[in-house]
Amino acid sequence: MTMPPIDGENVSALTFSGIQDALKTDAPSQADVSTTISSPPPLPELDASLLQCTYVAPDNLQPIPSLSDPSLTQQRQSTDHMIQAKWNSTSGWSAPTLCAFAPLTLSPMASCLHYATQCFEGMKVYRGHDGKLRLFRPERNCERLLKSTTRIALPAFPPEEVLKLIAALCATDAKRWLPADQPGRFLYIRPTMLGTEAAVGVQRPNEALLCIFLAVLPVLDAGSGPGIKLLASQADMVRAWPGGFGWAKVGANYGPSLVAQGEARRRGFDQILWLYGEEGVVTEAGASNFFVVWRTRESEGGKLQLVTARLDEGIVLDGVTRRSVIELAREKLPGSSSSDRDRDGDGSGLEAVEVVERMFTMQEIADAAGEGRLLEAFVSGTAWFIAPVASIHFRGQDIVVPGKGVYTGFLKRCLTGIMWGCDGWQAHEWGFVVDEEKVV
Amino acid sequence: MTMPPIDGENVSALTFSGIQDALKTDAPSQADVSTTISSPPPLPELDASLLQCTYVAPDNLQPIPSLSDPSLTQQRQSTDHMIQAKWNSTSGWSAPTLCAFAPLTLSPMASCLHYATQCFEGMKVYRGHDGKLRLFRPERNCERLLKSTTRIALPAFPPEEVLKLIAALCATDAKRWLPADQPGRFLYIRPTMLGTEAAVGVQRPNEALLCIFLAVLPVLDAGSGPGIKLLASQADMVRAWPGGFGWAKVGANYGPSLVAQGEARRRGFDQILWLYGEEGVVTEAGASNFFVVWRTRESEGGKLQLVTARLDEGIVLDGVTRRSVIELAREKLPGSSSSDRDRDGDGSGLEAVEVVERMFTMQEIADAAGEGRLLEAFVSGTAWFIAPVASIHFRGQDIVVPGKGVYTGFLKRCLTGIMWGCDGWQAHEWGFVVDEEKVV
Repeated sequence: MTMPPIDGENVSALTFSGIQDALKTDAPSQADVSTTISSPPPLPELDASLLQCTYVAPDNLQPIPSLSDPSLTQQRQSTDHMIQAKWNSTSGWSAPTLCAFAPLTLSPMASCLHYATQCFEGMKVYRGHDGKLRLFRPERNCERLLKSTTRIALPAFPPEEVLKLIAALCATDAKRWLPADQPGRFLYIRPTMLGTEAAVGVQRPNEALLCIFLAVLPVLDAGSGPGIKLLASQADMVRAWPGGFGWAKVGANYGPSLVAQGEARRRGFDQILWLYGEEGVVTEAGASNFFVVWRTRESEGGKLQLVTARLDEGIVLDGVTRRSVIELAREKLPGSSSSDRDRDGDGSGLEAVEVVERMFTMQEIADAAGEGRLLEAFVSGTAWFIAPVASIHFRGQDIVVPGKGVYTGFLKRCLTGIMWGCDGWQAHEWGFVVDEEKVV
Repeated sequence: MTMPPIDGENVSALTFSGIQDALKTDAPSQADVSTTISSPPPLPELDASLLQCTYVAPDNLQPIPSLSDPSLTQQRQSTDHMIQAKWNSTSGWSAPTLCAFAPLTLSPMASCLHYATQCFEGMKVYRGHDGKLRLFRPERNCERLLKSTTRIALPAFPPEEVLKLIAALCATDAKRWLPADQPGRFLYIRPTMLGTEAAVGVQRPNEALLCIFLAVLPVLDAGSGPGIKLLASQADMVRAWPGGFGWAKVGANYGPSLVAQGEARRRGFDQILWLYGEEGVVTEAGASNFFVVWRTRESEGGKLQLVTARLDEGIVLDGVTRRSVIELAREKLPGSSSSDRDRDGDGSGLEAVEVVERMFTMQEIADAAGEGRLLEAFVSGTAWFIAPVASIHFRGQDIVVPGKGVYTGFLKRCLTGIMWGCDGWQAHEWGFVVDEEKVV
């Protein structure tokens, strides 16, 4: 999409790249401000070291559900505690609190209930096969939370303080909810930021709440089965668009997707594959990123490629799993110029793969399938992890993904090793080990 | 924007026009269903006649603020009561309740806090100069609330039942908060629907809450001053897009607009004028609809036109005030074929005006201004009513709107008469008189 010229005179509202630049220089901004006589003192920053803990009495702790508990599919089970921190525009961040998981009390006028001043993150904490408790690249989620809050006019914070709070909650609850003798279990971590000011005006909220809780989820991983079935979206249901907020993890991206998603499920598909524009550009699948492995035509070199949508249009989420897949593929798979690749990983027996981030269309996938060049497709995300795609329904036809999942499987095994500390990946830098003996 | 062909095979998710069609035939759907032996009994519908009232004790009623109370600018003041009704997917709608205005209790997992499963309406109740309490075309707001809930997978309801509940709340609180001896006052009515299910999965909520409250707002009407100053949006901040939800009053349209709006205010403008696409199509101003009055070029007939964006692209809200302006202009202003027009209204002394709903661009406005053909511009909505526009900042230039506001003023006087029951408009069908002696 060609944009009209930007003259610097009209509103220079924060953009995707603008927010990225701002993060590099401005966050944490308030703490770095050098005060002069004329400046007001900086407002208190979010500070995890001030955490005030009020624990649930041992007798009132909930029983830990077994993994086969059918109620887990409802995704309603929280752990015992949560963390909250309040902000307002005149007094800054208050001391965060850790207390029993309990309902929130919000004015019926609260901004987050009317104007979607809300954003969140999705992460997991893993009980490793080496007994350790790990997060996976959590600093990336905390940085993305800051980008999301900035996009919807919610307050800034130092991302590393949110990470400390997440670790504190995991040290408190994951220790018990992920027993050391049950490696392979995980909890889902949901940090969320809400505009809480009770005022009906459409305006930047002057009050906000950071809330972090843990939920017990079933394993959504589609495993080694044939894979999930996707339904390509129609032009009358578009998830995101240039100049919008598809790149941010804001609530506004989700509610409007539920009608199409429900229709897909009713028709026997697992997720919507979201297309964009008249060319049918492939963006995301459900709330996950989307990858294909195909071979280019002989006239284009017959190269094996791992392809996913690029980020700079701002319509695709910068998924932590997406980024990790790309980085692992570039590092561990033999590349098109393989001399500079790590040939010691598991992937050394595989054919060279070129990793490509670009916009590509549904028709390109259909052509690759029709010409026998489509090998694999998978979605990547925190909730569904790496799920192979079995078929895509597009304009009346099922495009069947024929591959045996060699590359999908390789990438999934790498990530599994890092997340659960096994298969020689125990010391990988992406694994963040939670100190279970130290809350803050 | 040209859309790819629709083959009826892909997801036939609800669209703007689809929802309109559905409303014609399906709502209220459950109540009309003819039950057969094999059908489960229909779930209870929302039923205002079941309203259960628990009133605030007379000693605990709040004092009525004076219109000059500076705290009103904060838009935080509610009246004494609110109405709530709960829904869930297995038991339908419960009996609505009227009780003291009080905080809501929501799980930290509630769908509306993460996935923006939330929508609302904005209306006013007016204390007329004839002493009567009136709503303005409230059935249109209730029908639009149903369209909005449908777009974000929240439950359906008979719109007329929501209207009865609104009337009940007005009969309870507006009677006291809009004293009969203070004609011209109003309260803002905020019905809202929230997805309340406590589950972290991205899915259609199985529980929802309808909440209706009244707020005391200051007069936002820009009055007879020179008018508001608009700042044209840049291409990197786009409010709505085809296939999205700009036509619905869902929270997801508002939070993402706050950064641009805040930047506009910081730079001394009142609102953003939202443009769309590379051609700079003019859509909405802030959260209001936008109109211009211009004269076409002599080569195009030199006709006076009242122009606003059309609705069928789905990127503009179907504003009740917008629709009323169009209908009043067509009925009461002399038209281009004026023989069939009402020449008895106040507008008979004005020049003939053609009312046009079409997509038009910022460049067309700039050209009209440069060629001396731009006469007036105004925004229309419930909160800001009819506010004349003084200037639009676009690509480094201020486009000044030179007109004396003759047409803007005429239309505003018509609406004022209907809303506040004066100037001979007391019996207009758009004025819905609330029976203050009857709650349900």
